[in-house]
Amino acid sequence: MGSISDWETMKETALILDQFQVEYTKDVISAHRMPAEMFAFSENAAAAGVKVIIAGAGGAAHLPGMMAANTILPVVGVPVQSHALNGLDSLLSIVQMPAGVPVATTAIGTAGAKNAALLALQILAINNKDLQNELLTFRKKQHDDSVKSGEQLD
Amino acid sequence: MGSISDWETMKETALILDQFQVEYTKDVISAHRMPAEMFAFSENAAAAGVKVIIAGAGGAAHLPGMMAANTILPVVGVPVQSHALNGLDSLLSIVQMPAGVPVATTAIGTAGAKNAALLALQILAINNKDLQNELLTFRKKQHDDSVKSGEQLD
Amino acid sequence: MGSISDWETMKETALILDQFQVEYTKDVISAHRMPAEMFAFSENAAAAGVKVIIAGAGGAAHLPGMMAANTILPVVGVPVQSHALNGLDSLLSIVQMPAGVPVATTAIGTAGAKNAALLALQILAINNKDLQNELLTFRKKQHDDSVKSGEQLD
Amino acid sequence: MGSISDWETMKETALILDQFQVEYTKDVISAHRMPAEMFAFSENAAAAGVKVIIAGAGGAAHLPGMMAANTILPVVGVPVQSHALNGLDSLLSIVQMPAGVPVATTAIGTAGAKNAALLALQILAINNKDLQNELLTFRKKQHDDSVKSGEQLD
Amino acid sequence: MGSISDWETMKETALILDQFQVEYTKDVISAHRMPAEMFAFSENAAAAGVKVIIAGAGGAAHLPGMMAANTILPVVGVPVQSHALNGLDSLLSIVQMPAGVPVATTAIGTAGAKNAALLALQILAINNKDLQNELLTFRKKQHDDSVKSGEQLD
Amino acid sequence: MGSISDWETMKETALILDQFQVEYTKDVISAHRMPAEMFAFSENAAAAGVKVIIAGAGGAAHLPGMMAANTILPVVGVPVQSHALNGLDSLLSIVQMPAGVPVATTAIGTAGAKNAALLALQILAINNKDLQNELLTFRKKQHDDSVKSGEQLD
Amino acid sequence: MGSISDWETMKETALILDQFQVEYTKDVISAHRMPAEMFAFSENAAAAGVKVIIAGAGGAAHLPGMMAANTILPVVGVPVQSHALNGLDSLLSIVQMPAGVPVATTAIGTAGAKNAALLALQILAINNKDLQNELLTFRKKQHDDSVKSGEQLD
Amino acid sequence: MGSISDWETMKETALILDQFQVEYTKDVISAHRMPAEMFAFSENAAAAGVKVIIAGAGGAAHLPGMMAANTILPVVGVPVQSHALNGLDSLLSIVQMPAGVPVATTAIGTAGAKNAALLALQILAINNKDLQNELLTFRKKQHDDSVKSGEQLD
Repeated sequence: MGSISDWETMKETALILDQFQVEYTKDVISAHRMPAEMFAFSENAAAAGVKVIIAGAGGAAHLPGMMAANTILPVVGVPVQSHALNGLDSLLSIVQMPAGVPVATTAIGTAGAKNAALLALQILAINNKDLQNELLTFRKKQHDDSVKSGEQLD
Repeated sequence: MGSISDWETMKETALILDQFQVEYTKDVISAHRMPAEMFAFSENAAAAGVKVIIAGAGGAAHLPGMMAANTILPVVGVPVQSHALNGLDSLLSIVQMPAGVPVATTAIGTAGAKNAALLALQILAINNKDLQNELLTFRKKQHDDSVKSGEQLD
Repeated sequence: MGSISDWETMKETALILDQFQVEYTKDVISAHRMPAEMFAFSENAAAAGVKVIIAGAGGAAHLPGMMAANTILPVVGVPVQSHALNGLDSLLSIVQMPAGVPVATTAIGTAGAKNAALLALQILAINNKDLQNELLTFRKKQHDDSVKSGEQLD
Repeated sequence: MGSISDWETMKETALILDQFQVEYTKDVISAHRMPAEMFAFSENAAAAGVKVIIAGAGGAAHLPGMMAANTILPVVGVPVQSHALNGLDSLLSIVQMPAGVPVATTAIGTAGAKNAALLALQILAINNKDLQNELLTFRKKQHDDSVKSGEQLD
Repeated sequence: MGSISDWETMKETALILDQFQVEYTKDVISAHRMPAEMFAFSENAAAAGVKVIIAGAGGAAHLPGMMAANTILPVVGVPVQSHALNGLDSLLSIVQMPAGVPVATTAIGTAGAKNAALLALQILAINNKDLQNELLTFRKKQHDDSVKSGEQLD
Repeated sequence: MGSISDWETMKETALILDQFQVEYTKDVISAHRMPAEMFAFSENAAAAGVKVIIAGAGGAAHLPGMMAANTILPVVGVPVQSHALNGLDSLLSIVQMPAGVPVATTAIGTAGAKNAALLALQILAINNKDLQNELLTFRKKQHDDSVKSGEQLD
Repeated sequence: MGSISDWETMKETALILDQFQVEYTKDVISAHRMPAEMFAFSENAAAAGVKVIIAGAGGAAHLPGMMAANTILPVVGVPVQSHALNGLDSLLSIVQMPAGVPVATTAIGTAGAKNAALLALQILAINNKDLQNELLTFRKKQHDDSVKSGEQLD
Repeated sequence: MGSISDWETMKETALILDQFQVEYTKDVISAHRMPAEMFAFSENAAAAGVKVIIAGAGGAAHLPGMMAANTILPVVGVPVQSHALNGLDSLLSIVQMPAGVPVATTAIGTAGAKNAALLALQILAINNKDLQNELLTFRKKQHDDSVKSGEQLD
């Protein structure tokens, strides 16, 4: 993530990844305050065995797009809800990438942070039967929770 | 895609996929006019050997999200530029998914259509060395084209 | 409604319907977490004697439009106020339906939830003199309340 | 409609109604230039046998809401695409009605004009088996046209 | 104003008018809940000796424009800050009037409410030397207050 | 107006004023390129016998507000439609004035330019019976034109 | 700044300038309430030895642009977050300047206020080695703080 | 600039710089397609004798901000008008920088491109009497052109 203040949002990503017990590293790598580290991380990620990069940032959110510029790993971008413009700036800064360098963008805020983890898991699951089953179980549970929440209405 | 009128945009996706010679099928499956086919396609896609779904739609663009609701395959959503609101409606309808059902959203219009193909290829390349090399070559070429375009300025 | 968190808004719909003593059922049917139930409900609603469907949802609010895709009953859509974008995303996802599949959209939030109930009642009243009279009485009361509120100013 | 310039959009409503051979009247009744006629029309519509009112307007689009204020008939509002703001002003002026006076809003522009007719027909069909069948036939045809449009891709 | 809930904003108008000791009446006249009264008031205002009408409303804010449709008195419209869209809907509903029926629109919320009073006073002052002097004194005071506020910084 | 490029819009103001044969002067006074003239004009306008100022500007449209800062004459502001943001920037720059310095804002573009003239005339008419009658005749004609435009539909 | 209420934001500018121990003056100079002072200040600033002007304002934020109209000193504009529109109005009023009169615009709110100071310092540093070194030290510290914040995650 | 397609806009910058006969280099350096060159250029610019960097980009416009992250030279960012969102995405991606790394943002499109050049010149002029005089002459001419354009109206 681009700033420690994004952790409030991005910890939702970590919680999902913990739940699925996949290996990951989490760090603050600011595109604007730590450009060299950002550059090094994204250039070396594939060689280091990283499969998917999840980058959350707010405002002029350049981190996901700049990561994507330095790697052919899939990069998932999470628009963190910003103070003045509620994340519309974050969203447009992340999603409106030019042709040639894609960023897989999710929703603004915590819903997007959770979905970034799930999207990464769905990507990893393409060649992983066990993970497919875990995801189906997760979906089943969230389906059942929705059904139950409706039953509580009466 | 959700409508034949989206083809103008989505053919850019096809052109990239053709260039990389990956196998794919293209079709119009309207979430609103063909809900049963949409449902059937997304439920059966994994079993049919599909690895990634790319769905383009405009306006109240429900196709990517509804596909995603019926599968754990990664779904890439392309917001087609709409007439009145220039694709802002398409973008928000696709990207603002609730927690639990992710859609990997790309940019509005043709840039997003191209990037949807590249994102799908980057996803497939995680476990495919050849495809990694092809993507690196593609990146190299687009880098060189950018450099050359600057040289033409003088 | 699409999520139990929408109840805070949609209970305003229920309160109006209670007041008019019309029969109705309320439930959580998430387009994204319960697509099969959503599909089944909307396909079977007409046969089950439903006259009007009211669907409230927020964010990428696909529920009203997907219901409408599966029925020729009138579907009223209520854009629930979302966290980041204040319901602008909900509104555009619901109202910007393509030609062929209409959704009768009301205002964002509780005003829209109340009006969804009133709109449904006005639809039912077309062939129901008693309900017409009850609606006229309701309008009369709200007129008188407005008048009285102005008198309190002095 | 509020202005003859809206006819370009609203004739799509008329074309659908013609196709279904339902009886209707079309007129220009400007809320701002013909307020007395607007007032008279909406107050007397129910007594004159009108079942549903469809009102299209652009910019500060007050016509649908003011019609709705004077009748308990269902009022369908069509936001006509405006010059400067592309119909966002029309949409918000029509859909953001206060609690107590609903307007059933459709999409901006011609898609919304078509859907206004279809919504009115779906409302009338609640108690009209023949109209239900005609609507189901209409839906079937638009489904088949979508399917065929996809087959043309190959 | 259109609703008693607008009083929180519109009392700022009253406070300015009180300060200048001009005669005025204040009332709730809802365009949507009291259309007949709205119609009667605006049609009769000129004959009743009213010089300027100030109308505040929120959301689908039709009151100022409908007043303006029924009178050639200057109508000043105040966009009240709405819940979901922060008054952007109110602003567009009031300001985007079609050619032929002007509304003099002020800023969203309390600043606009104050300025509506000042604008009305400036209109009345065109032919009123005393009022001109009072306005100049008011401006002088607000200038001096600004100057003093800056001096407090040190 | 702030730029000669605004004339395309602001000539609509002139056409209405010509039609009513009121005396007026038209000029380009750029707030940003001719600040001294702008300052001088607005400070001296009242003494020079000006009754109402109409100022049209686009983009960061500071002209109406800066005129208003230097005079207690009513200032009518016309947001000229800008290239990139379609006049939304012009509208917000003109209408969102702070408390204490009002600008009477009209619609974006030519509708607003026409209404600025009509608003000025309505202001002048408060104490001018003849002008009141001319405005009523103008309104009558525009009413009749609307009625006739509807009759052409059949 | 344009109003004492902007101090909450603009004190962040002052804190950075204090930290770098550069000489500056701070004042409230309202474009709308103190136009003569605004005019005089900006016209005389260069002669008084000012190198860079930083102007913060909200809503119809005319201060930076009007300052810029009266000087060829670089003017940095800070869009203060406004109540209704969260600073979008401030931003557009400041940044959308016509060709010929530039304003160097920073982000909405406190981030923009801090960056206005840093931008001014970077401008002054072009010919000031010591200031360059202080800025590099500042950057180094903010880099290290970012790195440390990431280390706290574990 | 970030892409050769930005040249249509950015040549306006070059034209102004040519007119003032200042030395400059122009190039395409895509943040996303040429990240290494972008990184190298911005890191080395100061040592290479560059005084001010002007960077134009559209969509997810990361170039100005990423340049700014690698240098303490003033960076001027020009939001190029994008296809779908008319440059609103470019503007927000450039201007909404986090505290610590400023970008001096100008208007969307050609006006901003011209002003970027003028802003750079105004920055350089702080310590350059000749350039100050040239800028004053330029301002004088644009003032006179505005005055003349108004005289043509009669």
